[in-house]
Amino acid sequence: MSMFTFNIDTHSGVHIYTQIYQYIRHEIESGSLACHSKLPSTRGLAAHLQVSRNTVDMAYGQLMDEGYIEAMPKRGYFVCDIENLMPPIAAGAKTSDYKPEKKIPGSSPYVFSPYGVDLENFPFNTWRKIAKDILYNGQNTELFQAGPSCGDQDFREAIAGYLHQSRGVICSPDQIIVGAGADYLLILLSQLLDSDSIYAIEDPSYLQAYKTLTNLGKKTCPVPLDKNGMSIDSLRQSGADIAYVTPSHQFPLGIIMPIKRRLELLRWAYESERRYIIEDDYDSEFRYKGKPVPSLQGIDRHGRVIYAGTFSKAIAPSIRISYLVLPPGLLEKYRQRLSYLANTVARTEQKQMTEFIVRGYFERHLNRMRNIYKSKRDYILQQLAPYAGHIAVSGENSGLHMLLTFRDGRNAQDILLTAQKANIRLFDLSSYYIRPEHCTLPHTVILGYGALSESRLKTQLPLLCSALFGSRIA
Amino acid sequence: MSMFTFNIDTHSGVHIYTQIYQYIRHEIESGSLACHSKLPSTRGLAAHLQVSRNTVDMAYGQLMDEGYIEAMPKRGYFVCDIENLMPPIAAGAKTSDYKPEKKIPGSSPYVFSPYGVDLENFPFNTWRKIAKDILYNGQNTELFQAGPSCGDQDFREAIAGYLHQSRGVICSPDQIIVGAGADYLLILLSQLLDSDSIYAIEDPSYLQAYKTLTNLGKKTCPVPLDKNGMSIDSLRQSGADIAYVTPSHQFPLGIIMPIKRRLELLRWAYESERRYIIEDDYDSEFRYKGKPVPSLQGIDRHGRVIYAGTFSKAIAPSIRISYLVLPPGLLEKYRQRLSYLANTVARTEQKQMTEFIVRGYFERHLNRMRNIYKSKRDYILQQLAPYAGHIAVSGENSGLHMLLTFRDGRNAQDILLTAQKANIRLFDLSSYYIRPEHCTLPHTVILGYGALSESRLKTQLPLLCSALFGSRIA
Repeated sequence: MSMFTFNIDTHSGVHIYTQIYQYIRHEIESGSLACHSKLPSTRGLAAHLQVSRNTVDMAYGQLMDEGYIEAMPKRGYFVCDIENLMPPIAAGAKTSDYKPEKKIPGSSPYVFSPYGVDLENFPFNTWRKIAKDILYNGQNTELFQAGPSCGDQDFREAIAGYLHQSRGVICSPDQIIVGAGADYLLILLSQLLDSDSIYAIEDPSYLQAYKTLTNLGKKTCPVPLDKNGMSIDSLRQSGADIAYVTPSHQFPLGIIMPIKRRLELLRWAYESERRYIIEDDYDSEFRYKGKPVPSLQGIDRHGRVIYAGTFSKAIAPSIRISYLVLPPGLLEKYRQRLSYLANTVARTEQKQMTEFIVRGYFERHLNRMRNIYKSKRDYILQQLAPYAGHIAVSGENSGLHMLLTFRDGRNAQDILLTAQKANIRLFDLSSYYIRPEHCTLPHTVILGYGALSESRLKTQLPLLCSALFGSRIA
Repeated sequence: MSMFTFNIDTHSGVHIYTQIYQYIRHEIESGSLACHSKLPSTRGLAAHLQVSRNTVDMAYGQLMDEGYIEAMPKRGYFVCDIENLMPPIAAGAKTSDYKPEKKIPGSSPYVFSPYGVDLENFPFNTWRKIAKDILYNGQNTELFQAGPSCGDQDFREAIAGYLHQSRGVICSPDQIIVGAGADYLLILLSQLLDSDSIYAIEDPSYLQAYKTLTNLGKKTCPVPLDKNGMSIDSLRQSGADIAYVTPSHQFPLGIIMPIKRRLELLRWAYESERRYIIEDDYDSEFRYKGKPVPSLQGIDRHGRVIYAGTFSKAIAPSIRISYLVLPPGLLEKYRQRLSYLANTVARTEQKQMTEFIVRGYFERHLNRMRNIYKSKRDYILQQLAPYAGHIAVSGENSGLHMLLTFRDGRNAQDILLTAQKANIRLFDLSSYYIRPEHCTLPHTVILGYGALSESRLKTQLPLLCSALFGSRIA
């Protein structure tokens, strides 16, 4: 046993006990203090370093807690046997040199993206007013407590009311599960369905659900669409148990599933206890011709439709609030298996959205946005009208994008390149196929107009037309 | 073809076209209008009903869009063939009659829960001030756009800085993945690790991770603990690839894993490319004796430790913000497989937490809460001191709970019942075992003090002591 000799720096701002701790720890890690070697007594070291004995006690205590040294009753302190285990210490801390993520396409200047939404018209003042009310009302403490796993009661009531009125969804608030985004809720849902279920995915589709299910190790099968949506014959042939569909507005083709196909789909689901339909109603709020098409859930009479909705499209992409409406059988499973999970949406966010709905702002916002989007859509249709001989427009009656099919034989890649030269980005339909080689519409591209401001649309669309058609008029 | 006869109610507030649509739809659904039957022409019906032709066009358009009727060129409108498919309509909409969820234990009056945190001392004014600053600064629009999948850059920088300084974690901000809660992040993480990996779970443990992994269909195996934490021999025997551990403060036993065991664990991980350690550092902020024990991640030199942390314990349960620090190999996989996912934490929440950290409030809050919790802990230890002959206290130097072991042979169930009679709830250690029959501490119960206010603690703890020990003093 030797006495330590090192300089204590009383001006370093580092506690003296920390300095002692660090010195001894370093001596052990570097091998200078061999295992089983005895340390000075706390009294002896304190006297030697001219510090209080309590200071040395604290340093030894920390070293013991971390397992560097141990105390033997009546014998003193000894170095633990760790030297053979010490991993080699690298010269410098390894930091990764990954580049920051690429810029999100929707936020670039001339991207006609099918994803983004119009934030220029977001009612910031109203939103702020609600946020302020929530901040300054007396129930703050409650909102910081853990809330129910499925979401707050008043929020689920507000959602149920909205869904009933606007989407014809028939449910009680108890059937609603709130979560931070559609992907998360799909992960939960997959745990309620039979683990070996096969999921039929529309091809083409948004691909988000396909990726999430595949990453979870779930079996999926792409099912082609006909003009009425997912083909029932193909669905039957696929052997799938779960049909994931977007009946109100198929993404990206824009098909509205007619009542006959809806009923066929329900019949298919009713044939087996294992079968369910996931109705993804991602942007049903925006329909420009006629009334919104009521949900599939509303005509299901045997609890086989799981309705999935989100506020991200209707309000803002950063609002990570989505919800499921579970049929009673699955709700029971949720209660048993998953209600141990904390809800993933902050309660202040839930409260904010609740107030936005119940004070009537949400409906007003939807009506306003529907008019704004319709006005953009009408402008585009009007601008494209002279080129009707060259292109056919489809999927234009709902949602935030439309499809342009070129009759002149130009294929999508050429169109995208031509647009790119005018500094405009259009989107390739085939990139939404699970099996791009199954894309039967090689001359079709996607033009989204949600995120573009009306003024930008009015400067860019003529440039796009000019790039695509030159002086050609049908 | 017959002409429809029904009354249009011009005072009902329902659009006339909607009334026409609803009437015809009902006639089709009820079978009154047979399939393939021809509808009146729009001109004829308009004249018959004395409404504009445009109104009838709209009603027919909606019926076509939903697939109830179809137009045959030059022949007119016909009812589609759906009657055989129509499911029987139940008499009333089925609503579920589930009861609302049970009250959360942590919010009841005399629950000595190991989960809750002290919200009486939450810095609401500071929190509000930050929220207000964010609400009223000019960058709101940006915060409503979709952000990076892994979380906002400035937030990840703030977390990396905090982790480096307080926890000895060595990482760049790029390695951090932000998400809505530890469970969600564990779900993501499981998709980055080999899908057939076996997860070793400390037994006893919090069970949350165990449930989440089991629900995902992952193979798990409970591994017993010795006095230094997860037993390496048992870990080896288990055949596990992933070790899920709480080295800073084992839950619920309170073990601080000594450096030797940490190094053994790292050696174990270094033996195979498939092996990883998940370091769950859930409440490392609260240590009352000596310095915080540095993280296991900080001594890993080969990128085999995944560090998992959360703000729920340090701030409030409703703050659903957690994070992972991924080693470079897994980060690469995240980028390839999961970066398509939208981040699950609202950007305003991320910004709020960022400001709370970078303005120094978080550190101040932690220091303050550490003192408050220490004061509660000291009070409990002082109150229990007279009964040292009857009980042994352990795990009292960190976290928000301690263990009481009864030397007088009373078992946990009896203790819980006795406490219950005094209207106090303690927690059963065996309920934290995956295999409760492996609980080797039948006389031990858990006493949590995080959520109880100091004043309530001071009224309830003497009642508890009196119920447990009567007038007995050691």
